[in-house]
Amino acid sequence: MSLLTVGSVAFDAIETPFGKTDKIIGGAGTYIALSASFFEKNQGICAVVGEDFPQEMLDKLSSHNVNLEGLQVKKGEKTFFWSGKYHNDMNTRDTLITELNVLEHFDPIVPDSYQSHDYLMLGNLSPQVQSTVIERMNKRPKLVAMDTMNFWMDIAMDDLKKTISMVDLLILNDEEARQLSGEYSLVKAAKKIKEIGCKYLIIKKGEHGALLFHGEEVFYAPALPLEEVFDPTGAGDTFAGGFMGYLSATDDISFENMKRAVIVGSALASYCCEKFGTEKLTTINKKEVEARINEFVALANFDMKELVTE
Amino acid sequence: MSLLTVGSVAFDAIETPFGKTDKIIGGAGTYIALSASFFEKNQGICAVVGEDFPQEMLDKLSSHNVNLEGLQVKKGEKTFFWSGKYHNDMNTRDTLITELNVLEHFDPIVPDSYQSHDYLMLGNLSPQVQSTVIERMNKRPKLVAMDTMNFWMDIAMDDLKKTISMVDLLILNDEEARQLSGEYSLVKAAKKIKEIGCKYLIIKKGEHGALLFHGEEVFYAPALPLEEVFDPTGAGDTFAGGFMGYLSATDDISFENMKRAVIVGSALASYCCEKFGTEKLTTINKKEVEARINEFVALANFDMKELVTE
Repeated sequence: MSLLTVGSVAFDAIETPFGKTDKIIGGAGTYIALSASFFEKNQGICAVVGEDFPQEMLDKLSSHNVNLEGLQVKKGEKTFFWSGKYHNDMNTRDTLITELNVLEHFDPIVPDSYQSHDYLMLGNLSPQVQSTVIERMNKRPKLVAMDTMNFWMDIAMDDLKKTISMVDLLILNDEEARQLSGEYSLVKAAKKIKEIGCKYLIIKKGEHGALLFHGEEVFYAPALPLEEVFDPTGAGDTFAGGFMGYLSATDDISFENMKRAVIVGSALASYCCEKFGTEKLTTINKKEVEARINEFVALANFDMKELVTE
Repeated sequence: MSLLTVGSVAFDAIETPFGKTDKIIGGAGTYIALSASFFEKNQGICAVVGEDFPQEMLDKLSSHNVNLEGLQVKKGEKTFFWSGKYHNDMNTRDTLITELNVLEHFDPIVPDSYQSHDYLMLGNLSPQVQSTVIERMNKRPKLVAMDTMNFWMDIAMDDLKKTISMVDLLILNDEEARQLSGEYSLVKAAKKIKEIGCKYLIIKKGEHGALLFHGEEVFYAPALPLEEVFDPTGAGDTFAGGFMGYLSATDDISFENMKRAVIVGSALASYCCEKFGTEKLTTINKKEVEARINEFVALANFDMKELVTE
């Protein structure tokens, strides 16, 4: 099948207890597309960069089978730039710099060649931009998923809820789920969020794994216990990319297959944390991804038959 | 097979955001024995209570196939009493009252009828009392497990490490694992703790599940996502009881069977949180326990075959 991703393609500068980077390539769209490329060979991306964005990185996306027809390069403008510093526990970070640049007036273009894409992943962007892309698709994709963040809950809650009501699946983290729903219990939060209108919900809990909700069904995927998280930047987007890339490549949106997709996303996210930025994602191969997925099988699966037939 | 538990049999008074109890029956030994009784029908307990402890509750333990020959009743003395209040997030609590009473000079007796017990569970008590019980067993049980708490790390770290080096399995929670090892990463913490001398380690993460470590193997069990945690008192002991009761009843200490035992413990612990104290544990039946275990199977298992054979 085919996957269309909408998301930022950007510069990041990251500081963790393990080191510090200059401007490196980042952005939700970049992580999603690279991660999805391990499974889906037919991808497009709606994004915008400035004149300062390196052609070399665009070529790298192309070499990962990401069609760039919907990626706008704005002459005389600068690419979105984010800089952040992680605290020692790696669970909290301070944003040091946010320069919106080209993102400020991002008007996504959905070229004809993207119109037949079956799966749509809306990376974290303003809810307005996200809903615009849905509206610009001539036919409804089989599954529309979106990510978001607390920032939009603070400044555009009504727009955000409207966009959530237009998608099938919402992906967010535990803190965002609590803020969006006003509920501390994630089970209660999930109920309230699904009432906004999305059928499926994934709540990411970082080192504690992820929960997938649909109707009365729940799946709890573990996270791989890591000795060290070197740099968590992009892990959430990498998760979403692996999830959607796998769903799209297998073209099966049953709950059982979504479970597998959550594991695929978790496996790729665990790799993402091992190096700065997209470095790990651009150096591993499919065999390594499969090996990591098998680690998850060993980590999480058990055979309870003996008891149940007792 | 057979299980010997050493642990407090006590009075608790609990306050949670959902309500408040008078003095009710609690104690690690009580929770462990009741929980294990769903699987193991041959149990003994080493404990001590005062004259004030109700015969009715002792009869209840007997009716759950717990032999009380090693339970001392001290004339003219009072039973251990703990009182605590949970905060709104249910993850933290304040201890309001601790009256050691009979526990202050607890000298455990291991009657002849317990000497052949194959599995030994040392509930949270002073490391000195725990090691004394191991020494008083004429033959080494097949598996010796222990629980502990931060209190003993604060006041008796050397004794605690000595006792840990005498057991096969240590069960503690994430905060305790961090304090014991001085490592934030649970993977690093697990390595350091195993160096103290125990072969197996379980780190409980509350609502985030539990990790089982042995050599290079790791198993990550989920916790059941609950709408509400009514009262978490005793959940950790209930987990340990279910774990050890299942291991003992199946008499199989392979890693695969320990995975099952972790799920059994998790299922029982999830029930424990639904009512105050031991109320839920004393009113559910085996069928309900099996149904809860099946919920864990649906929650955690996935079939990755399609990908792996790709």
